[in-house]
Amino acid sequence: MKATILYGARDVRFEERPDPKIEKPTDAILRLSATCICGSDLWPFRGIGFFAEPPTPMGHEYCGIVEEVGKEVQNIKPGQFVVGSFAASDNTCVICHHGYQSSCLQREFMTTAQAPVLRVPLADGTLVPTREFPPKELVPSLLTTSDVLGTGWFAADGANVKPGSTAVVVGDGAVGLLAVLSAKQMGAERIMAMSRHESRQKLAREFGATDIVAERGDEGVERIKELTNGIGADSVLECVGTQESMMQAIRSARPGGFVSYVGVPHSVTLDGAGLFFAHVHLHGGPAPVRRYLPKLIELVLDEKINPGKVFDLTLPLSEVAEGYLAMDERRAIKTLLQL
Amino acid sequence: MKATILYGARDVRFEERPDPKIEKPTDAILRLSATCICGSDLWPFRGIGFFAEPPTPMGHEYCGIVEEVGKEVQNIKPGQFVVGSFAASDNTCVICHHGYQSSCLQREFMTTAQAPVLRVPLADGTLVPTREFPPKELVPSLLTTSDVLGTGWFAADGANVKPGSTAVVVGDGAVGLLAVLSAKQMGAERIMAMSRHESRQKLAREFGATDIVAERGDEGVERIKELTNGIGADSVLECVGTQESMMQAIRSARPGGFVSYVGVPHSVTLDGAGLFFAHVHLHGGPAPVRRYLPKLIELVLDEKINPGKVFDLTLPLSEVAEGYLAMDERRAIKTLLQL
Repeated sequence: MKATILYGARDVRFEERPDPKIEKPTDAILRLSATCICGSDLWPFRGIGFFAEPPTPMGHEYCGIVEEVGKEVQNIKPGQFVVGSFAASDNTCVICHHGYQSSCLQREFMTTAQAPVLRVPLADGTLVPTREFPPKELVPSLLTTSDVLGTGWFAADGANVKPGSTAVVVGDGAVGLLAVLSAKQMGAERIMAMSRHESRQKLAREFGATDIVAERGDEGVERIKELTNGIGADSVLECVGTQESMMQAIRSARPGGFVSYVGVPHSVTLDGAGLFFAHVHLHGGPAPVRRYLPKLIELVLDEKINPGKVFDLTLPLSEVAEGYLAMDERRAIKTLLQL
Repeated sequence: MKATILYGARDVRFEERPDPKIEKPTDAILRLSATCICGSDLWPFRGIGFFAEPPTPMGHEYCGIVEEVGKEVQNIKPGQFVVGSFAASDNTCVICHHGYQSSCLQREFMTTAQAPVLRVPLADGTLVPTREFPPKELVPSLLTTSDVLGTGWFAADGANVKPGSTAVVVGDGAVGLLAVLSAKQMGAERIMAMSRHESRQKLAREFGATDIVAERGDEGVERIKELTNGIGADSVLECVGTQESMMQAIRSARPGGFVSYVGVPHSVTLDGAGLFFAHVHLHGGPAPVRRYLPKLIELVLDEKINPGKVFDLTLPLSEVAEGYLAMDERRAIKTLLQL
């Protein structure tokens, strides 16, 4: 098959690779219905923080049809339409039982999903079949549950968004926008989206943002304080992963408030005393998407949410390199790759 | 009156100061029944992190009898026995309503309590009268509710200790020991106290510790993992405030677990990516003692807890300098100052 390989900074190629096959009896092979490019893929694309040394395959968001399963797979059957998390998990260990499947004792991060065919480890634990074969138009939204929506959902959950909460979302990438959608679903009364890009502001409003804050840094924090009677928000959802965004998030929360952070922090350090006197709750990490998948899939199939709207560029998989460039240059929020 | 003044590192004097008097109509004047030295007082005593430039009065833990109140004080009456938090608060602002009185919009940290007479700002919000005039033998335990017990309680609450939890307490100072007591009260099934001092280990066991871990650093973390089926504890209560203790705490929690930190961190920095992959919840700050005071006072008056046992040295207030030295040299866990 032909698939996506990153050769180095800004060097994405679509080229021949061996077809994936069952390697362990707990594996499944999927024929993907769609895949996409994640904001986190831009870090290695820009030459920062490679997870693996290039040349390396790319991609960790996926949904599609089961072609084959290993001998020990019991619940997943060929012909099913399935979605899985970007982190494969057994869903049976004690950490999975606590709802932290993305830190499963057997966790494997997916890294080869920008391809037509995908091997998924720990298929029984990782994959969730849909109750019915989905109509084609729902595939993009189902694809988002695999990571970007699940991560936005974790941001809202980790920041303790409840009915009536005031919430701030830092970051207007696809995760930030879906964090807005998630906060809305969890009943936030007020959702302040920090964004300075018109098309993203528009989508944030469509997903439920009640206020747009274009200011950043000190001015951004001041504006949030103005909007929250001077005290800061109950919940702040940090969806960027830089020092500036993290500090903006922490400073935008009220004492006793909750700050979540869901993108891998890059060169971020937190001062202990500063955090202490900020008096916030802080929670983050790789989103335990598997915990949320059954619910998110239902919300999509019932058409209660339309997270697929974050895809504002659709390309054939063969043009994946252009998809990276468009996101890197912020011409696209998120690129859907068709098969 | 004669009271405690810190002149500089290791230079504590007991000397004449003006008697406190009502300065604002919301003040109260207390004749203290007892006061004490806090572990946090040792930082400026050692010349690290003065809150105020020396010479400066010291002390923030107190209980006693109301002598006089300002014109606007409505609920606190002369003759009442009261306890107050180390942080004065109005208990009416929106932050107080969220239970974070130690970040009250009108917060004032108490700094003059190692004295016979004390001015307390925001008396109605800060002070809690006892339901009855307490017998003398309960005064030390009541005194602990003012800070050291309230802070240990916040450690357990902030680390989400629930019935059945496994908890680790990092630090065997008075706060750490009372964090053990607090975790026990909240129903922790297993409480691992990290301590290498025999007398403190003994008190930890008396307060409810089920395991003592004498190892530190990597070995300490490894030992906690051994005791928790390899995954780490549900709740970790950090009661020291150094880089080493903070990292030990974070690394001792399971993914999805809860880490609280209740001592002002000194020269502590946290790496964002490390925290992200640790996957923990983190919460800390100055303990909102006022939130807990009514409950803690009841527990003491009903003799369900005996937190006053952390005082293993009792001195007259005039010998306060020796009290600091004894704690600095770890000859004493905590010094009670009698009046």
